[in-house]
Amino acid sequence: MIAVDVMGGDHAPYVVLEGALAAAKKTIPVVLYGPQELIISWLDEHACGWEIYPITIVDAPDIIAMDDEPVRAVCKKPSSSLVKAAVGVAEGRCSAVLSAGNSGALMAAATLCIGKSDGVERPAIAGLLPVISGEVLALDLGANIECRPHHLLQFAHMGNAYAQSTLLVQHPRIGLLANGHEEGKGSPLIKEAHISLKKETLNFVGNVEPYDIFAGKVDVVVCDGFSGNVLLKTMEAVAELIASKIDLTQAQALKSHFSYQRCGGALLLGIKRPVIVCHGCSDAKAIENAITTAWNVSA
Amino acid sequence: MIAVDVMGGDHAPYVVLEGALAAAKKTIPVVLYGPQELIISWLDEHACGWEIYPITIVDAPDIIAMDDEPVRAVCKKPSSSLVKAAVGVAEGRCSAVLSAGNSGALMAAATLCIGKSDGVERPAIAGLLPVISGEVLALDLGANIECRPHHLLQFAHMGNAYAQSTLLVQHPRIGLLANGHEEGKGSPLIKEAHISLKKETLNFVGNVEPYDIFAGKVDVVVCDGFSGNVLLKTMEAVAELIASKIDLTQAQALKSHFSYQRCGGALLLGIKRPVIVCHGCSDAKAIENAITTAWNVSA
Repeated sequence: MIAVDVMGGDHAPYVVLEGALAAAKKTIPVVLYGPQELIISWLDEHACGWEIYPITIVDAPDIIAMDDEPVRAVCKKPSSSLVKAAVGVAEGRCSAVLSAGNSGALMAAATLCIGKSDGVERPAIAGLLPVISGEVLALDLGANIECRPHHLLQFAHMGNAYAQSTLLVQHPRIGLLANGHEEGKGSPLIKEAHISLKKETLNFVGNVEPYDIFAGKVDVVVCDGFSGNVLLKTMEAVAELIASKIDLTQAQALKSHFSYQRCGGALLLGIKRPVIVCHGCSDAKAIENAITTAWNVSA
Repeated sequence: MIAVDVMGGDHAPYVVLEGALAAAKKTIPVVLYGPQELIISWLDEHACGWEIYPITIVDAPDIIAMDDEPVRAVCKKPSSSLVKAAVGVAEGRCSAVLSAGNSGALMAAATLCIGKSDGVERPAIAGLLPVISGEVLALDLGANIECRPHHLLQFAHMGNAYAQSTLLVQHPRIGLLANGHEEGKGSPLIKEAHISLKKETLNFVGNVEPYDIFAGKVDVVVCDGFSGNVLLKTMEAVAELIASKIDLTQAQALKSHFSYQRCGGALLLGIKRPVIVCHGCSDAKAIENAITTAWNVSA
């Protein structure tokens, strides 16, 4: 069962309910965390006979706002939809959780309620970037704005493990995002991380530039959260800009190829159970896809 | 007259000569710095009667390689094409210099030979990013991988001055590249720079994300060289990836829109005279365009 934070996101709760309903209709069991009355009245209105679908409702009257301070909000609001959804996974009722709400709070709830995987100091947001052929796993995409070299090392191991277990790449090629291929390139963070990565038993291929990523020269790209965020959002913004300038048919294909809607969200790696971070601006399709992703990775 | 480092770039000297010849044919006076015999024999072979064009040749027998340590190379190789071209500007024979060679060495030569503008601690590489309508000036794009807040402040002033004087924007909107709009977002560098920028007499609009840049919500975007490099190269890589997936006619338009070829290179701001940093992989058209840009900004 997938725990869904109904109250998270710019367009919550309605688009979240719409996406969750669509997933339930595809036989994915969902647990909806949010104000019970609101959820039931929406379902009654929009999906007469919804009781036949695998939908469970858990009342969670409180809400964590987008601008709430993450750790404080998680501690002070145990009855919020976000925290209760995370607890649902922590206590084993659900196999994965997703939210399009306050991503810092989701990370805090994941860390505090579900717990970090062994050896992980900082969970990281990982996403699949569409490249020339297939996809590349990139992390961190924004959870850790400040990193130290050993964090990047841990990201490499987390990405490696995920690529092996879920993407089924036997010896994932790991690259380090930098401003040039040479070993001496990059900030002190990158230089140190490069030296450390060379010593690991990983298939580390060295520094990579964005061109290498989109040419599919690596399976996993490791970066600090600030650079990863610039990488991800530049990709999305440029794809959208180009889509606005070319003919409609091709633009549609392009948008869906580069959109976060496709897989619906990013994964929070380094947490004991799957946690999916959805875009704040997620629409119903993105939520549905994120639930599908959550279902697949927790299967 | 534009000083051209004939020996700089992955495809030097021939594509540089080809680009310079094309510019000279458009009546832009060029001074070619490189091995005199080689230059003359190429011109004789490829442009019979080239003496009618505004071409001057200055013998520079030495070469700075792409992987030479910049400052040391500039000091040890006064007879290199790159250093002699910079000296040509420093001594007033030329109004601007360009090279597709070792960009660190070009920056060192610019700083050591031509000199920094008053009040500038670190020159920055500035480029025009194509956005939904028009262009946005972005700096730094890779000259300063490590920055301190007051460097970003100086970049803002340098970008502001350039936007006013050359792009003719009266009150340039200045944005700071970050991972979110809120003032508290970003690394400590960004947070501190944000606070300082608010105190300046600039039209500072706050933090911006890549989406804002490509939507044309600012005229100047300020960033550290590492993030700026990721921004620029992601833009180029995504545009190229998309171009490979859409039909040929639209792909051509797209490529030329997003290609570095368009303006041929980036500007090194904070130097007393115009310095143009060309891509290492520049082709003849890119060199020609860079010479045209150099001619326009030094006019």
